[in-house]
Amino acid sequence: MIFTSSGAGYHSESKAKEYKHVCKRACQRAVDRLRAGGLALEAVTSALMELEDSPFTNAGTGSNLNLSGEIECDASIMDGKSLNYGAVGALSGIKNPVLVARRLLSETQKGKLSAGRIPPCFLVGKGAEQWAISHGIPACPTEKMTTKFSLSGYKRNKRKMELAEQVETKRKRQLCEENNSACLDTVGVVVVDREGNVAAAVSSGGLAMKHPGRVGQAAHYGCGCWAENARDVSLYSTAVSTSGSGEHLIRTMLARECSTAMQAENAHQALLEAMQNKFISSPFLAGEDCVLGGVIVLRCCTCGEAQRSEDIQALLVEFLWSHTTESMCVGYMSAQDILMPKKMGSGRT
Amino acid sequence: MIFTSSGAGYHSESKAKEYKHVCKRACQRAVDRLRAGGLALEAVTSALMELEDSPFTNAGTGSNLNLSGEIECDASIMDGKSLNYGAVGALSGIKNPVLVARRLLSETQKGKLSAGRIPPCFLVGKGAEQWAISHGIPACPTEKMTTKFSLSGYKRNKRKMELAEQVETKRKRQLCEENNSACLDTVGVVVVDREGNVAAAVSSGGLAMKHPGRVGQAAHYGCGCWAENARDVSLYSTAVSTSGSGEHLIRTMLARECSTAMQAENAHQALLEAMQNKFISSPFLAGEDCVLGGVIVLRCCTCGEAQRSEDIQALLVEFLWSHTTESMCVGYMSAQDILMPKKMGSGRT
Repeated sequence: MIFTSSGAGYHSESKAKEYKHVCKRACQRAVDRLRAGGLALEAVTSALMELEDSPFTNAGTGSNLNLSGEIECDASIMDGKSLNYGAVGALSGIKNPVLVARRLLSETQKGKLSAGRIPPCFLVGKGAEQWAISHGIPACPTEKMTTKFSLSGYKRNKRKMELAEQVETKRKRQLCEENNSACLDTVGVVVVDREGNVAAAVSSGGLAMKHPGRVGQAAHYGCGCWAENARDVSLYSTAVSTSGSGEHLIRTMLARECSTAMQAENAHQALLEAMQNKFISSPFLAGEDCVLGGVIVLRCCTCGEAQRSEDIQALLVEFLWSHTTESMCVGYMSAQDILMPKKMGSGRT
Repeated sequence: MIFTSSGAGYHSESKAKEYKHVCKRACQRAVDRLRAGGLALEAVTSALMELEDSPFTNAGTGSNLNLSGEIECDASIMDGKSLNYGAVGALSGIKNPVLVARRLLSETQKGKLSAGRIPPCFLVGKGAEQWAISHGIPACPTEKMTTKFSLSGYKRNKRKMELAEQVETKRKRQLCEENNSACLDTVGVVVVDREGNVAAAVSSGGLAMKHPGRVGQAAHYGCGCWAENARDVSLYSTAVSTSGSGEHLIRTMLARECSTAMQAENAHQALLEAMQNKFISSPFLAGEDCVLGGVIVLRCCTCGEAQRSEDIQALLVEFLWSHTTESMCVGYMSAQDILMPKKMGSGRT
């Protein structure tokens, strides 16, 4: 069972079609991995790489360019089974940032480095790029990751910035909405495998025209993604991925807050309340206008009547999403027959 | 009221004396700012800069060198009043990393940038350095921040690493303890001002021999520091700063967890429980040996018999600390007469 989101923002008709296609392909990649016996962590990586490779998403290839016209990506991944985590920030020159995050995660599982050094879970910038290359992940020149679309967006934004610096503050908000709606298409994936393990990942090219070195929620623990297997049968396993304005998602720790909220009985109600109280009217965002974000949330359990299976457990899976942005593209797919009594979406809040 | 910590780790007799001196000077700096009418946020910055400037702490001048022999610093700051936050990671070439974090925080309070761009709250690497310089913070060559002590430590660690790569795994743990205990001396400050506002900050040179680009808890939201003014009279204002193994402090979000725990009636008991359940035996650190960390925690309220004042409110302030490391140097100072019925330390847990 896999769910992908190709970002919260505003999507034109023509772009929406492309997003649906890439979401479907990403789901298919994850399903293939699950059918081949892969765990949630492997499936989530495969799906996310497909989303990064699409030139239409703001992640990997086709990422927004920063103020200097460079690509700097953020990505992170979390394994609900081991609770291990890996993240990269402001990473240039690597085609699939999530692959580096995934590799950091698996390296932490191998224990200490020489001389007892603790392996890093979060690397940024040039150091992250060097680490990736020294761990066998090939370099990729920025030009190959830049698309006609991202380059024309950069030029348009540059003109807009020059204009904005001349106009009065009263136009700023309008420009804010125009600008933000065009550039929040980060991607996320949540997966549960047949053993009931959950995993989540997220990847982002960041805000258009961001300052070099800016790191957003996609590289921030608890903010971009969260995955946590249930520690006992009375709890739900949860996986969350977020998209939207990075700074707002950082300061509200939205991924972890949504995960915590998912232990309530009514998931739909709990998500709506979390989006309202922990995001839109969060005290951490007091004074902020246009709070833009979206989440995809998965929760599952083996409780109640579903505990009837032999080697393969029957899972109760719920999938929800919510966003304050104009639109968000969401896809899901199942690799096998799974009991799925509820499947809910909550639209724009 | 200001509390500083010059890090959790192992301190020799001679070094301990230096730490006490620098803690005292840092406290004095904060007290001077508070007496001059400064708020908690300004006092916390002044104290932390003093700690960074000491060649004996692993922050700013005298920071651990990374694998390439460079200094890359992490720092963050949080204002309990506005809940604003600023952080820098893997920052080279700036004498006082906390000053950049402080500036990021104050820039976010000014609202949107041109063309509606959201100002960054977290910058890393070269981009962070450029941002700092363009905002009037002077560059500082790495050589000036390197001390005889940090350089000899680097050479010693390098030899140890070369040796460790030849010996068996069974010696790794021993080396781990030797290595970690020597290099966790990051610094933190928590402050409450006469209006009852709290602020917290943290700064670190990171683990010795870390991979370039590695970012630790000191630059991680919710992990290195936390400050939150009470939103109503039934709650406590809390400020927390952490020190120790960055990866462990990230994955347990220890600063925020301790802040949350501080709403319990018995602060001492709550901190011990938080350190045990949310850190030492946290499910997020299952399988990790030598979980090393320390926290300084401040909580205050104006409740009960203390609500007797005129323009200046009488505050009830509690200060606690806890660490799993061999030792931790802690200092505190008061700028005025404050009701202080309890002052508790909880030693090594």
